[in-house]
Amino acid sequence: MPDTSLLEFFDSPSDTPFLIEHVNEEFTSVCPKTGHPDFGTITLRYQPAAVCVELKSLKMYFQSFRNEGIFYEAVTNQIRDDLAATMSPDWLQVITDWKGRGGIRSRITAEHGDVPLHR
Amino acid sequence: MPDTSLLEFFDSPSDTPFLIEHVNEEFTSVCPKTGHPDFGTITLRYQPAAVCVELKSLKMYFQSFRNEGIFYEAVTNQIRDDLAATMSPDWLQVITDWKGRGGIRSRITAEHGDVPLHR
Amino acid sequence: MPDTSLLEFFDSPSDTPFLIEHVNEEFTSVCPKTGHPDFGTITLRYQPAAVCVELKSLKMYFQSFRNEGIFYEAVTNQIRDDLAATMSPDWLQVITDWKGRGGIRSRITAEHGDVPLHR
Amino acid sequence: MPDTSLLEFFDSPSDTPFLIEHVNEEFTSVCPKTGHPDFGTITLRYQPAAVCVELKSLKMYFQSFRNEGIFYEAVTNQIRDDLAATMSPDWLQVITDWKGRGGIRSRITAEHGDVPLHR
Amino acid sequence: MPDTSLLEFFDSPSDTPFLIEHVNEEFTSVCPKTGHPDFGTITLRYQPAAVCVELKSLKMYFQSFRNEGIFYEAVTNQIRDDLAATMSPDWLQVITDWKGRGGIRSRITAEHGDVPLHR
Amino acid sequence: MPDTSLLEFFDSPSDTPFLIEHVNEEFTSVCPKTGHPDFGTITLRYQPAAVCVELKSLKMYFQSFRNEGIFYEAVTNQIRDDLAATMSPDWLQVITDWKGRGGIRSRITAEHGDVPLHR
Amino acid sequence: MPDTSLLEFFDSPSDTPFLIEHVNEEFTSVCPKTGHPDFGTITLRYQPAAVCVELKSLKMYFQSFRNEGIFYEAVTNQIRDDLAATMSPDWLQVITDWKGRGGIRSRITAEHGDVPLHR
Amino acid sequence: MPDTSLLEFFDSPSDTPFLIEHVNEEFTSVCPKTGHPDFGTITLRYQPAAVCVELKSLKMYFQSFRNEGIFYEAVTNQIRDDLAATMSPDWLQVITDWKGRGGIRSRITAEHGDVPLHR
Amino acid sequence: MPDTSLLEFFDSPSDTPFLIEHVNEEFTSVCPKTGHPDFGTITLRYQPAAVCVELKSLKMYFQSFRNEGIFYEAVTNQIRDDLAATMSPDWLQVITDWKGRGGIRSRITAEHGDVPLHR
Amino acid sequence: MPDTSLLEFFDSPSDTPFLIEHVNEEFTSVCPKTGHPDFGTITLRYQPAAVCVELKSLKMYFQSFRNEGIFYEAVTNQIRDDLAATMSPDWLQVITDWKGRGGIRSRITAEHGDVPLHR
Repeated sequence: MPDTSLLEFFDSPSDTPFLIEHVNEEFTSVCPKTGHPDFGTITLRYQPAAVCVELKSLKMYFQSFRNEGIFYEAVTNQIRDDLAATMSPDWLQVITDWKGRGGIRSRITAEHGDVPLHR
Repeated sequence: MPDTSLLEFFDSPSDTPFLIEHVNEEFTSVCPKTGHPDFGTITLRYQPAAVCVELKSLKMYFQSFRNEGIFYEAVTNQIRDDLAATMSPDWLQVITDWKGRGGIRSRITAEHGDVPLHR
Repeated sequence: MPDTSLLEFFDSPSDTPFLIEHVNEEFTSVCPKTGHPDFGTITLRYQPAAVCVELKSLKMYFQSFRNEGIFYEAVTNQIRDDLAATMSPDWLQVITDWKGRGGIRSRITAEHGDVPLHR
Repeated sequence: MPDTSLLEFFDSPSDTPFLIEHVNEEFTSVCPKTGHPDFGTITLRYQPAAVCVELKSLKMYFQSFRNEGIFYEAVTNQIRDDLAATMSPDWLQVITDWKGRGGIRSRITAEHGDVPLHR
Repeated sequence: MPDTSLLEFFDSPSDTPFLIEHVNEEFTSVCPKTGHPDFGTITLRYQPAAVCVELKSLKMYFQSFRNEGIFYEAVTNQIRDDLAATMSPDWLQVITDWKGRGGIRSRITAEHGDVPLHR
Repeated sequence: MPDTSLLEFFDSPSDTPFLIEHVNEEFTSVCPKTGHPDFGTITLRYQPAAVCVELKSLKMYFQSFRNEGIFYEAVTNQIRDDLAATMSPDWLQVITDWKGRGGIRSRITAEHGDVPLHR
Repeated sequence: MPDTSLLEFFDSPSDTPFLIEHVNEEFTSVCPKTGHPDFGTITLRYQPAAVCVELKSLKMYFQSFRNEGIFYEAVTNQIRDDLAATMSPDWLQVITDWKGRGGIRSRITAEHGDVPLHR
Repeated sequence: MPDTSLLEFFDSPSDTPFLIEHVNEEFTSVCPKTGHPDFGTITLRYQPAAVCVELKSLKMYFQSFRNEGIFYEAVTNQIRDDLAATMSPDWLQVITDWKGRGGIRSRITAEHGDVPLHR
Repeated sequence: MPDTSLLEFFDSPSDTPFLIEHVNEEFTSVCPKTGHPDFGTITLRYQPAAVCVELKSLKMYFQSFRNEGIFYEAVTNQIRDDLAATMSPDWLQVITDWKGRGGIRSRITAEHGDVPLHR
Repeated sequence: MPDTSLLEFFDSPSDTPFLIEHVNEEFTSVCPKTGHPDFGTITLRYQPAAVCVELKSLKMYFQSFRNEGIFYEAVTNQIRDDLAATMSPDWLQVITDWKGRGGIRSRITAEHGDVPLHR
């Protein structure tokens, strides 16, 4: 079950705004309709305000979706909401790319905050 | 025959604007001039207002063009019009990429609504 | 319905053995179990004995599978049998590559006659 | 000899602005200086006003350059001028990409009308 | 838990030897040492004797490894053994390609029976 | 019109057998059935006996097919025969790869002499 | 230990603003948490004011991180700060791309100064 | 020795602004520090005012750098200055991409004039 | 310093011969002549006799070369000798691919035992 | 002028046969007919007998062809002869790949000694 208590944070190493991108090509959850597993890539981009997310804790958080029945659109919005609430970043973007189902592949994009000038 | 009654919708999981993209690499219709089959890729991108299109119903709608005699430009505009009318999205874009005919390959792009800030 | 009467042939332009390969990336038939369309690429390789298959007639023969309900393995063996019977080539190979279904993509290979030395 | 009388047109299927792109990877003309053939790819992009160019007639028009002695820059401007004059589109762009000569490959880009918002 | 009772078979459509390849890019199991998920691609190639494996049942069999703690080398040999025992093919090959762990990616290859002449 | 008198040769620089490959990606001839141009890549590989073909003369020979109406299979066998007759090489192979027509692309392979050990 | 005294500079060869990009695909440092080596690519882009960094000295500076225990985010900000302090460029951007750890690959981007018009 | 007298020009075939790009992947000069050869790709883009540079003369001009000892940054600025002075174009951009030295590859970009609207 | 005591082994899970390949794209050692770091990819392929090498211990063994001054040819032969001595495999192959130095990239291949039939 | 006195050798680090490959993508010489520079990639593969060629000396030897007027076929045979004479390897292969001239690119392959079993 998705679990934000797995997330850990550390203080940003700079007061100058900068950007961080983490790409997880090994995401899997379960389709609530068919019960079959879904496979996707999660791209997280953000401009930290005060804290950064620790990489291994982020991996554990993503793994907590493994046996969760949840739609593409809901996964994407939940990750955006969870990370926006726990990190309060200046800007955050979550992109999920899903392998094809019935010949159709999908990408969902959700954002939080104003797009930074330097992106 | 293209049939919008095949389309099903579900409520958008978030009030915050976000983007959805579905790519169908297995689209086929028939050239009304030569009777030969055409093969293409349909890319649908939209920002939902109140509802999202259900993925399997979208696939069935695309399959309803299989034995329809229709030109590239008309397919693209019809899909844009059908989805805009049934979903009323904030923004919607349809891109069709067609395999080569006589050494020429083609792409048609149609849009509905204002381009979202976050695209 | 698959129809070998569509096939036309012309005399081989040389008595010296040589090889011919035709690749059709626009093959489609229908899954007899689910009724959903299948999409694949057909690769035909052969060493002609007395005749070669005419290209446009080969295309029409492949198109005659469009609305046929037939499994991957059966398509491949039928094309091998049809072309071996009508052309009597020294050697013939049919390879079918099918787009993914349920996350699994497939390739079937069938041959007729002895592999030529020069392949 | 380049011949615009080969071009045929059909009425645009929509009043909503949309974009069309045709890519011909099989263009050839002759260098007027050396007499050697030149090989290139022509990309045509436009937003139709009232009419669209018919695909097979466009192919015949491109083929009419086959034995014409003409420089890269002149080919590109002539295609732009010919199509702007016969179609009166809202916007039109012609890009020609030429295979290397003496280790140098080239691209020429010519436009007509204002760049559309939705490009 | 890996479960061969999920596998279903159908009669081979031809007495002439031919080859079948199924590639599953969405395989996941669990590392028995760390508890972290492993992700890989399973390639199955075989020459059927009397029966072929049905595609959807193969998918269900592969999914039965999802929460199993098992090493790369053991997964590969178990799939080889399970399929050889249930299908008795003339020849069978299982190749597993695993995403990197600690900067090292791995491939394991196991075979059953004599390599066919036509491979 | 294909013209072998354009070909020039020079003495092989070594008595030790070696291999030469020339790839011409800019070949064009005309389909004798439709009158439309065909575009292909010609790969010539050979082990010289006494002489090698001069590169610019080879280019002029290939260009002499430009406005010739001739089928794929005939082009390939004629180039094989012309070069075998004029160079008397130990071994020679001609491979022609043709761009798609009607969704089908083709490759024709013709050889002369015994395959060299070192190929 | 990172050492800016290794850096050498030379006078910019032009008063007209221009851009310089150096990409080092062979960067390695050490994870301070696990002690395992990290591998990345460093992209440095800048618009020089008065001086440019000498290429071999830049390489030596990058090598001085080889056995340093330091996080991704800190490496990126330190390089930005070191080069901004020693070169006083009009604009400078540092992008670090890190190979996957636990299935997640990362990119960090830090900038100094106003983005130039001509980028 | 770089020699602008090798450059020849011809009148622009159109009064409507258009863009020209020439890419030379076979540039070589010599490092003035080590005496070793440098290898790069030169991309020249410009919007002609009254004249265009003739392609073969441009090649000869680039070849005149072959045995010149000159740094990356100086090559790029000299080509920009030479071509701006002799052609007086509306806009001109020179990008040089250099193969790796000591594991670092480089790109230098210099411009002249205002960026055209249609780029 | 290269240290075989870091290597750990486990019993092969099958008596039927099978093949294992591990690819480490993050290998680094030091050039004994210049003192500069070398970067390479190590590919290890083997057919186990009684034991397999444990993946994390293999990674630690590879990391023990990090600050060792050693030539390409010597690294390759040492890894072959170390693993052949400690695992006594039926067959073993080590391939090292090194990033370019002075514009020349290198690959060294060393083997132990007879090439297996099924490779 | 090609100069074998630049070549240096070191004792092979192993009595067990192994293979070495060096790829130089930065080779240039001059066409003796036109005076224009030729650009190519030289691949050297060999199984050492007693000695290996030192990498930097090999680079200097390759650079000694820079301003030499020499045909593709002659370059390849000369490098084969020079290295066979100075190293006396068990086996040696030289492959030269030349960038296109007049739309034709070329590859020349020369060997010395018997092909090793393990290649």
